[in-house]
Amino acid sequence: MAEGKKLGGAGLRGQVAGETALCTVGKSGAGLTYRGYDIKDLAENAQFEEIAYLLLRGKLPNRKELDDYKAKLVSLRALPDALKLVLEQIPANAHPMDVMRTGCSMLGNLETEEDFSQQDDKIDRMLAVFPAIITYWYRFAHDGVRVDTTTTESDSIGGVFLELLHGKKPSELHERVMNVSLILYAEHEFNASTFTARVCASTLSDIHSCVTGAIGSLRGPLHGGANEAAMELIQKFKTPDEAEEGLMGMLERKDKIMGFGHAIYSDSDPRNAIIKKWSEKLAQEVGDTVLYPVSVRCEEVMWREKKLFCNADFFHASAYHFMGIPTELFTPIFVMSRVSGWTAHVKEQRANNRIIRPSADYTGPADAKWVPIDERP
Amino acid sequence: MAEGKKLGGAGLRGQVAGETALCTVGKSGAGLTYRGYDIKDLAENAQFEEIAYLLLRGKLPNRKELDDYKAKLVSLRALPDALKLVLEQIPANAHPMDVMRTGCSMLGNLETEEDFSQQDDKIDRMLAVFPAIITYWYRFAHDGVRVDTTTTESDSIGGVFLELLHGKKPSELHERVMNVSLILYAEHEFNASTFTARVCASTLSDIHSCVTGAIGSLRGPLHGGANEAAMELIQKFKTPDEAEEGLMGMLERKDKIMGFGHAIYSDSDPRNAIIKKWSEKLAQEVGDTVLYPVSVRCEEVMWREKKLFCNADFFHASAYHFMGIPTELFTPIFVMSRVSGWTAHVKEQRANNRIIRPSADYTGPADAKWVPIDERP
Repeated sequence: MAEGKKLGGAGLRGQVAGETALCTVGKSGAGLTYRGYDIKDLAENAQFEEIAYLLLRGKLPNRKELDDYKAKLVSLRALPDALKLVLEQIPANAHPMDVMRTGCSMLGNLETEEDFSQQDDKIDRMLAVFPAIITYWYRFAHDGVRVDTTTTESDSIGGVFLELLHGKKPSELHERVMNVSLILYAEHEFNASTFTARVCASTLSDIHSCVTGAIGSLRGPLHGGANEAAMELIQKFKTPDEAEEGLMGMLERKDKIMGFGHAIYSDSDPRNAIIKKWSEKLAQEVGDTVLYPVSVRCEEVMWREKKLFCNADFFHASAYHFMGIPTELFTPIFVMSRVSGWTAHVKEQRANNRIIRPSADYTGPADAKWVPIDERP
Repeated sequence: MAEGKKLGGAGLRGQVAGETALCTVGKSGAGLTYRGYDIKDLAENAQFEEIAYLLLRGKLPNRKELDDYKAKLVSLRALPDALKLVLEQIPANAHPMDVMRTGCSMLGNLETEEDFSQQDDKIDRMLAVFPAIITYWYRFAHDGVRVDTTTTESDSIGGVFLELLHGKKPSELHERVMNVSLILYAEHEFNASTFTARVCASTLSDIHSCVTGAIGSLRGPLHGGANEAAMELIQKFKTPDEAEEGLMGMLERKDKIMGFGHAIYSDSDPRNAIIKKWSEKLAQEVGDTVLYPVSVRCEEVMWREKKLFCNADFFHASAYHFMGIPTELFTPIFVMSRVSGWTAHVKEQRANNRIIRPSADYTGPADAKWVPIDERP
């Protein structure tokens, strides 16, 4: 029916589209919580697998549960041969998010979720295999190398990703930063990709369809990809002064500047201080005297001039760069992390479902009269 | 913010989530219109390609425009070798909607939409190649045959599908029924798969991501697939009396009966009378004395007992069956058709975009205190 209630703004902004017990965003005092836990505590103390467990199983695991969970994920990293062949067909110049989307979709053909009793196993499989999908394709397309995704020394998702990418076990610091990064990106309420997953889940479709759809939405430059854009920005500048001058010019020309501000947070993004600290540590480790100081100056200028704060993405750019991660793989890391939040939302939607089917205001012609083809202008 | 306005019901039912000039559903007097044209006029007089043109270009084409458009689509049917190889990796027991989803996603790797100026060409390519994707996989997986998707006698999307599936040019009647069916399924306002496509489009993601996500949502049994379920139902019965007895038992046991009623229409689905007429014609052609009379009796019983009417899906089941289409390919036909509506909505969303990002009511714990792992129960 077109007579639905008119919402306040476009894009359903500020409108409640359902319930969740997973996350709060932008509530005063807390900033960002996962199942009630403050993001600062989680990023300081937890491993990413612990957070995935929290989101997906509803509680923090004890030592044995976490060990078992990590062992399970380690055992699920092998790529099926048919999936390897598919990844080998994708050219080196493809968009890495298209690779993730296709890899996830193909997995759904080979290991289909036949009914919802399988959902936890299918989710764990995706968590475990996504780093393998992106690095297998990347190394094959760029270096012609077929990496063995099952024999890494690392036992964490972030560590495995770095090890498969670089061909050697990452340092403790790098594995730790990956952990923090994956925790920060794991969950963020009804953002567009998560909402995509829930709309798909509301038709009672399978878990691979939900995640495939979510990857497609995260690919959009208004959603994922801001850390890639931030990298492009800071790489332009050789010194903080140059960055200040460049930014001032961009502001004057009203250029779009990515990595600042947020649709929900108004004063600061609680994830920024956390990743900024780790970026600084990495800068010290690699002896950087450019990218980190340039990033800090950008932050100062944007706040001074526009009262715009860095969001989660801005210092992620330099942090990832210091760990030798190619810029085009930044958003796929987001996928490796957010798949935990997406699938936790799918489980929640399935547990209390009604198909998500809104209405539209009709703006077209009232009555159009059929005209035979040979009488048309 | 969790303080958003509480919506009336779950699933955004009856809530306006945006504007469209493409379609009205369930408005009194008209039933279903595409850009103001009554579905009855369109199904009676048009070809599917004419309707795709109407939805995507905003007006009915004249003779030359339609001829050019059909010629363009005919020229876009070849499958890239890499896509063929991918389809050959998908086992025969895969879900055909997973095949469509993966085929569309893979196409996005090979022929990426680099910017929105390419959208019409990418859309036309999908319209042209989707029948080739599903039939190439189906014939290879089931018969080991690699069909040449470029050399059919048919020049319509529905005709090409039947010809690739059966290996011979379809009769005029069958091509006509496919045309009608594709027209009936082409567009239906903010249904869940179309809304998925719009949410994805709202992040400014690419067209293949939007359609891949929509396919995943259509796959759900609450959305697409009702015609497959209707087929399973009517195939159980050998006579109308048996059908009546069976249905009465199902109603008594409160079994779920697919193909009846609709979330938006309250008295009838305007598409039903149209496809029913064509199903009857096909029944006469093949000399059917079971499926069609059984279907008619089901319709009578459901109306008499529950005031439930057949929706678009119910008589599609017998119609497709009479044309020799395997039941598992019913929902992929829906994709071949609805891709026109999905992509018309993506174009509309892009033309006046704001990212779709609703809020959620939080139902989880207020404040959870971090507990070190070795102190957890």
